Amino acid sequence: MLYIVGLGLGDERDITLRGLDAVQKCEKVYLEAYTSLLALGLDASATTTLEKLYGRPVIVADREMVEQMAERILDEAQTSDVAFLVVGDPFGATTHSDLVVRAKSMGVKVEVIHNASVMNAVGACGLQLYRFGEAISIPFFTETWRPDSFYDKIKANRSIGLHTLCLLDIRVKEPSVEALCRGRKEYEPPRYMSVNTAVEQLLEIEENRQENVYTEETMTVGLARLGQPTQLIVAGPLKQLLSVDFGAPLHSLIITGNTHVMEEEMLNFFKQQ
Amino acid sequence: MLYIVGLGLGDERDITLRGLDAVQKCEKVYLEAYTSLLALGLDASATTTLEKLYGRPVIVADREMVEQMAERILDEAQTSDVAFLVVGDPFGATTHSDLVVRAKSMGVKVEVIHNASVMNAVGACGLQLYRFGEAISIPFFTETWRPDSFYDKIKANRSIGLHTLCLLDIRVKEPSVEALCRGRKEYEPPRYMSVNTAVEQLLEIEENRQENVYTEETMTVGLARLGQPTQLIVAGPLKQLLSVDFGAPLHSLIITGNTHVMEEEMLNFFKQQ
Repeated sequence: MLYIVGLGLGDERDITLRGLDAVQKCEKVYLEAYTSLLALGLDASATTTLEKLYGRPVIVADREMVEQMAERILDEAQTSDVAFLVVGDPFGATTHSDLVVRAKSMGVKVEVIHNASVMNAVGACGLQLYRFGEAISIPFFTETWRPDSFYDKIKANRSIGLHTLCLLDIRVKEPSVEALCRGRKEYEPPRYMSVNTAVEQLLEIEENRQENVYTEETMTVGLARLGQPTQLIVAGPLKQLLSVDFGAPLHSLIITGNTHVMEEEMLNFFKQQ
Repeated sequence: MLYIVGLGLGDERDITLRGLDAVQKCEKVYLEAYTSLLALGLDASATTTLEKLYGRPVIVADREMVEQMAERILDEAQTSDVAFLVVGDPFGATTHSDLVVRAKSMGVKVEVIHNASVMNAVGACGLQLYRFGEAISIPFFTETWRPDSFYDKIKANRSIGLHTLCLLDIRVKEPSVEALCRGRKEYEPPRYMSVNTAVEQLLEIEENRQENVYTEETMTVGLARLGQPTQLIVAGPLKQLLSVDFGAPLHSLIITGNTHVMEEEMLNFFKQQ
């Protein structure tokens, strides 16, 4: 059996009792470490924290490893219990649907244990979950690569009054260009997009496209460390978020559509004076 | 402190370790019992199951009770630790934002402990969470009340290619018309809308409106008991779902928008031959 277990938003104790039951009976425990980030980090001490809680060794699997090892993980799951741990909910990220498809094709039994993800926890800001449209991902701009296709999605959402959740870029274990040139495996330090960078990029795109999809005055919500004790939520016009210090990652951003009275009442608690 | 604790999708062991920690240190524990339904039911034996797990008495609070008692709950939370338990995620339903607004206005500290909700767990069917538009609620038709405003929302979602999650009606503790006439407090037995009823109503509306928002052939997904061991997911054309027996509640339904290859691959596993 392959257990795909959601770990929730950040703390090791965000796992459910059912998730813990599953992990504790598994022979192998893999922790997916490339679509998100545990609040507790992914260094050795963090893994130790998980191992203590689970009473099992935890194998940290980055993207390369999962891609290379998927077959082996699935083979193991055919004859024993294997846990694949995912920050958030198992289906927050597309990549895990792929694992399920492969498991089903091989006849491996899969049990999914759900948990909170940014996709539903953003409700904490007071905007109603059912009034969100398509979520977008904002990648880091580079000198030569400044994509803006998500601008059209924000436009489509706002055209029917819906909010847009912007998931901000996470770069973990990116090979450094220098190392690539020398044929060596070396990685850039991890980078996480801040709300401020996202706002800068959004303003640049609006400046270029001039379709008035949003303005500096559009009501937005910046969220940092959602669901953790240090969570910070600030609501305000897009340009105001430029100057807010949201602190440590992960960050995300919401561009509002039409808001209802109840939503506005909640947002008021998150506005800065 | 007021702890608002998400219980997840159905099993009492879907609570998180952090949620359990909070509940166990609270003096009073209220269980909200009107926006959703625990798989384990809400009769005395179910409450006993929760009480055994928590080591605390659990006060089941229906809508009337929460509305009448919100002030008392918040007063208690000003001087002691109080838990308010919600099936799914605390912000899956609008009503709980209201409790937070009132708490914040009174200066009561609130800690939210997130969990899975239908809003993110529907990812289990293979449709990607970020490609959903506005979610709709389909109420039971009566002889004289056959609302169809959600038809326009499906239309708007589909116009930009997005999927629509349909939340199906739950009627718990509805006063019976007969009892109302006699001035007595008596309640109808609980009713939960099945996928089949939802499909019938949707086809009736399309028949009346004739705007080709969807047809009998539109790809849909019926979901029953999401996240529970007896979960059933069936993908197929709208009219085909009419004749599928989805069994016990809760049910929900997805009307797809544009689907990607990866989504179709997953849906194929849920199609009936």
